[in-house]
Amino acid sequence: MTDVYQESLELHRKHQGKLGVQSLISVKNRNDLSLAYTPGVAEACRAIAKNPEESFKLTLRGRTIAVISDGSAVLGLGNIGPAAAMPVMEGKSLLMKEFAGVDSIPLVIDTQETEKIIEFVKQVSPSFAGINLEDISAPRCFEVEDNLQEIGIPVFHDDQHGTAIVVTAALKNAAKVVGKDFRSLKVVIVGAGAAGLATAKMLLGLDGPWASLHQLTDVDRIDQLKIVDTRGVIHPSRPDALNPHNKYKNALLAFSNTPDEPSDLSQALEGADVVIGVSGPNLITAQMIQRMAPKAIVFAMANPTPEIHPDEAKKGGAMVIATGRSDFENQVNNVLAFPGVFLAVISSRIPRITTYMKYAAANALAEMIESPTPSLILPDPFTPQLAQRVADAILMVSKKR
Amino acid sequence: MTDVYQESLELHRKHQGKLGVQSLISVKNRNDLSLAYTPGVAEACRAIAKNPEESFKLTLRGRTIAVISDGSAVLGLGNIGPAAAMPVMEGKSLLMKEFAGVDSIPLVIDTQETEKIIEFVKQVSPSFAGINLEDISAPRCFEVEDNLQEIGIPVFHDDQHGTAIVVTAALKNAAKVVGKDFRSLKVVIVGAGAAGLATAKMLLGLDGPWASLHQLTDVDRIDQLKIVDTRGVIHPSRPDALNPHNKYKNALLAFSNTPDEPSDLSQALEGADVVIGVSGPNLITAQMIQRMAPKAIVFAMANPTPEIHPDEAKKGGAMVIATGRSDFENQVNNVLAFPGVFLAVISSRIPRITTYMKYAAANALAEMIESPTPSLILPDPFTPQLAQRVADAILMVSKKR
Repeated sequence: MTDVYQESLELHRKHQGKLGVQSLISVKNRNDLSLAYTPGVAEACRAIAKNPEESFKLTLRGRTIAVISDGSAVLGLGNIGPAAAMPVMEGKSLLMKEFAGVDSIPLVIDTQETEKIIEFVKQVSPSFAGINLEDISAPRCFEVEDNLQEIGIPVFHDDQHGTAIVVTAALKNAAKVVGKDFRSLKVVIVGAGAAGLATAKMLLGLDGPWASLHQLTDVDRIDQLKIVDTRGVIHPSRPDALNPHNKYKNALLAFSNTPDEPSDLSQALEGADVVIGVSGPNLITAQMIQRMAPKAIVFAMANPTPEIHPDEAKKGGAMVIATGRSDFENQVNNVLAFPGVFLAVISSRIPRITTYMKYAAANALAEMIESPTPSLILPDPFTPQLAQRVADAILMVSKKR
Repeated sequence: MTDVYQESLELHRKHQGKLGVQSLISVKNRNDLSLAYTPGVAEACRAIAKNPEESFKLTLRGRTIAVISDGSAVLGLGNIGPAAAMPVMEGKSLLMKEFAGVDSIPLVIDTQETEKIIEFVKQVSPSFAGINLEDISAPRCFEVEDNLQEIGIPVFHDDQHGTAIVVTAALKNAAKVVGKDFRSLKVVIVGAGAAGLATAKMLLGLDGPWASLHQLTDVDRIDQLKIVDTRGVIHPSRPDALNPHNKYKNALLAFSNTPDEPSDLSQALEGADVVIGVSGPNLITAQMIQRMAPKAIVFAMANPTPEIHPDEAKKGGAMVIATGRSDFENQVNNVLAFPGVFLAVISSRIPRITTYMKYAAANALAEMIESPTPSLILPDPFTPQLAQRVADAILMVSKKR
């Protein structure tokens, strides 16, 4: 892995990053200048002043997304701050362009106060068609996002929903592979950060802001789901469970399948069909997998070191194994979701990304694999038209609800 | 003029604006992905976390400027708000790219509170090499800019300093044309907004924030300068003169050449060598020009209708006439300055644009015209290498002071 790091560093230095700006109109003479700038430009300004919707049609706004981060939870590197987060955000923008043809601008911001992040996004929103929040640590990310759903353009926290969409897609196909009904799967999620809680929310079919969650009845949802954090299964009698700092975990208690008494990861896995790890390295052993139901599904997505190495999971008897890494089979990678999500956003004026749209995106991804196998439950990110198919699925739903 | 407006509107609609994003690295396979994004990208993050200066070398930050506006004073259109200001900001970014090859991102923001604009710019500063403030109304623009000089990257309000630089360059050459000494010119500035006060400040050789202005002794500066606003010449005995809301006008009182008693524009122009209009349409008459000194210099830059039509100014006996318009001789256009200023910014890590740098830019522009004539005091914006020469002049100074 040393080589990929050095090679990447040199690539960044050589190009001074990865993303540039290009003119769509050339300015070669006074006439060009009078059309692109004064006096001609005044007409576009007047048209927008009269009808603000025109800003989506007459300026880059309509086809441009902001990728915004405070640098508080970057990759496995943690809270490295805004400037050091830029390579990742610029990378997101690059992928958005390469995989979906969507223009986006990386903005790293020098504040980690929830209220100030919310205000920043509101202030900058007239410049963009949508906002991709990135690498903002839990639990602030939940409050930030909940407070930005009514600003008129979609605000989508990729670490939550990108992961949730791709995991849901992967799990649908994994269920087919093991011959079990998706809705009847017993699922354990390990990790109660942004990705873990958002995945739980999506699998449980929950809709609405965290303060007023409710369960959708007309979606394919999981009935039996436990969430495990560093202190064991989330449980109402745990001494920290009603701590207001855990209000997001608490909100899920009402819907998840809590055990009768406090228990740990190992106990939670007993008889489970699925374990989804979005936590840390080497937390799961082959012995634990052995205690799961037959034909276990193991998604061990901690990066760079998974909760359990795929070889160990296989030893434990797992039938379908996925990780977050590109060097193993079945990579669960957000790049399958966010480019298509934002392609939908710039293709149509959607005020927000609804829960139904996320299911539609997950189903579209799952359906791209006609006959899932243990080693093929998700499409390759380079599948032609992948982002377009995700976008189409979202746009289809956007017309209905 | 109807045609240019309609044609421009159609151009904006056809391209959905004027500026796009481009990938500098292609992502065609898993290896590309691992270099541009995870896991390789972590190395650039770590390098910046260790040494923040690396963010200028390893990401787009080092070669990208933000063009930021609150939409409060856009062209002649006034306070049309952020969304409607975007065509102008996107135009600025386009010109920055076309005239200097500098990448920039237009950001229109939904707040017109001074403190919030200052905070927004600070928060977004880790993403950029420099900030071009644009179309923020006076007097807020002065406070905004003064509070952003110590953030580590240059913050330059183009409406102030772009105008001041180009006017200074034009005036240097106009003085040669009329055969008068630049420093001895008697100058009247009509209009005490952003452009008027900044031009006065530069011509008077003033340095420092508004609260502690001081005069530089080693620059070519004007000794005799009067400023006229809608109530006449700025004068200490005017009833509004000590109004704290006019603190910027007051600050200049100490340095400008105030008359003995309150007087109006017509009186101010008596015997003046130069009138610089940055105010409104048709405020100056041929009769007023006749009362000026022989070989008068008239810059009538109100847009789209100048303070006096060039034909009228000629009737009044003016020898050198400039306007802000492209359809008359001697266009005073900020596009001569800001692309070169920001080319300097991305070429070298300059913490701020100093007064000396602005003089250097003005001198460089003036010197591009070897033999100024009444109809040629400024270079054409399409002059090859223009931005580079402005940047070189700034960089030369940046090494000295």
